[in-house]
Amino acid sequence: MLDKSKRYLVVGLGLLGGKYALELTKAGFTVDGINRSEKHLQYALDKGYIRSGKTHDFEDLVSGADYVIFGLYPTALLTWFETYGRLLKPGCICTDVSGVKTGLVGPVQEMCPAGVEFIASHPMAGRETSSVEHAAEVNFAPANFIITPTEKNTARAIVWITELAEVLGFRRISTLTVEEHDRMIGYVSQLCHAIAVSLMCANDNTDLCEYTGDSFRDLTRIAKINETMWSELFLWNRDNLIAEIDQFDGALAQLRAALAAGDRAALEEMFRLSTRRRAAFDE
Amino acid sequence: MLDKSKRYLVVGLGLLGGKYALELTKAGFTVDGINRSEKHLQYALDKGYIRSGKTHDFEDLVSGADYVIFGLYPTALLTWFETYGRLLKPGCICTDVSGVKTGLVGPVQEMCPAGVEFIASHPMAGRETSSVEHAAEVNFAPANFIITPTEKNTARAIVWITELAEVLGFRRISTLTVEEHDRMIGYVSQLCHAIAVSLMCANDNTDLCEYTGDSFRDLTRIAKINETMWSELFLWNRDNLIAEIDQFDGALAQLRAALAAGDRAALEEMFRLSTRRRAAFDE
Repeated sequence: MLDKSKRYLVVGLGLLGGKYALELTKAGFTVDGINRSEKHLQYALDKGYIRSGKTHDFEDLVSGADYVIFGLYPTALLTWFETYGRLLKPGCICTDVSGVKTGLVGPVQEMCPAGVEFIASHPMAGRETSSVEHAAEVNFAPANFIITPTEKNTARAIVWITELAEVLGFRRISTLTVEEHDRMIGYVSQLCHAIAVSLMCANDNTDLCEYTGDSFRDLTRIAKINETMWSELFLWNRDNLIAEIDQFDGALAQLRAALAAGDRAALEEMFRLSTRRRAAFDE
Repeated sequence: MLDKSKRYLVVGLGLLGGKYALELTKAGFTVDGINRSEKHLQYALDKGYIRSGKTHDFEDLVSGADYVIFGLYPTALLTWFETYGRLLKPGCICTDVSGVKTGLVGPVQEMCPAGVEFIASHPMAGRETSSVEHAAEVNFAPANFIITPTEKNTARAIVWITELAEVLGFRRISTLTVEEHDRMIGYVSQLCHAIAVSLMCANDNTDLCEYTGDSFRDLTRIAKINETMWSELFLWNRDNLIAEIDQFDGALAQLRAALAAGDRAALEEMFRLSTRRRAAFDE
């Protein structure tokens, strides 16, 4: 099991970074924090999510950490690592929480000082809210935790990240390559968000609010979106997401053509296929 | 309040027809049934949803009914009315449960014998299941009930259908024209189903089942679909649905273009718009 005498550092006390700090502290670990905004750092201190924290002059926290969790967006993580990565001490293991891995994991691993290891992971527990003030509402119990190791990673780091995910209480821990992860996330998450956003942007039907049922509400719930994070996730996974949009659009065009032609048999065939495939997701 | 000495007839004991029969019987009304399949008629009799019922030679049930509820698909309703409509007695009021109204309400009203009135309505309480065997699972409590009167309808019929919806326990009863109803349903229901079906048909990603989170499951839940009913609903509302698909597709193309161009500002603008509009649906 994880060694509780080690020092944990969370860089970026947002929704997920904050939740990691909260859960680790609750489990008896020593957790420090670094955050850009004073207000949210103070919130984490007030709530006891972290033992201590800083917004600047935090070199001692970085060089004293045994384990570092980056709760930053991909661009900010790269910038942080370029500036402060050299301060990490030999033996230190780091991870992230980012929803995209291509273009991030390789460069960060390249920047790791000797003896420092970055093992990427993705807690699939995002919500429509953001910031440490909502961290306590995040629920890891039904969520997937994906580890994306590369050939640079050691067994020691993979064991550590797996045990961390267990401590955090994820339902299911699995391993994918960086490429598999980004293709998967392009389909199961980003394409869904692209669709929900497009549906809300298509026209202003707010006068129809009162007539909506569960199907519409379920479909568009995720159209409430953190624009900073999601534009970053979309752009970092652009090729996969465009490929998924095009495949989806092809199927929609096929349905539209069947409809325009009054081709009932073709419609029924699509409905049977979608029913059969969707049933597999309920098993 | 509704007169309990009157005779109710449900024609088509499917999911909704069966639920109407069940609720009306429970409320103390006398309900008979007509159904094509012997098996489902027997089920409704065994469960006490109806007092009596027939699969054929049902002329006496039709001519004896004070109120008739058609739980049939649009095409079947038109055919039924052509064949048996003349048997309805003067003073009889009829309604339906159909999810589309254009092309249905006008012709049925034209066929009504003297003194017989058809007032169309739509209980927005469909589920992914079908048949009378699932009728008891249908929940009207959170659902909308839409009445679509025409200039042929009388105040007496509108009062009756409103009280019927109250007895059945709908959350909210409202009135739209036939055209407004079909435009609304094309957007809040049919477009959502077209999207969910297309997403499942786009490619066979059942290997990704284990990675899906709430957003994917919510978005695709309605891809499990009764192909007979939904192909009929889509085709009967073809023009509205095609217009909605095209509007949606335009927004998706806009998102794709912003993504392909790496235009972060344009993406963020769409995300802010979708967030703002979707928030209105939570109020």
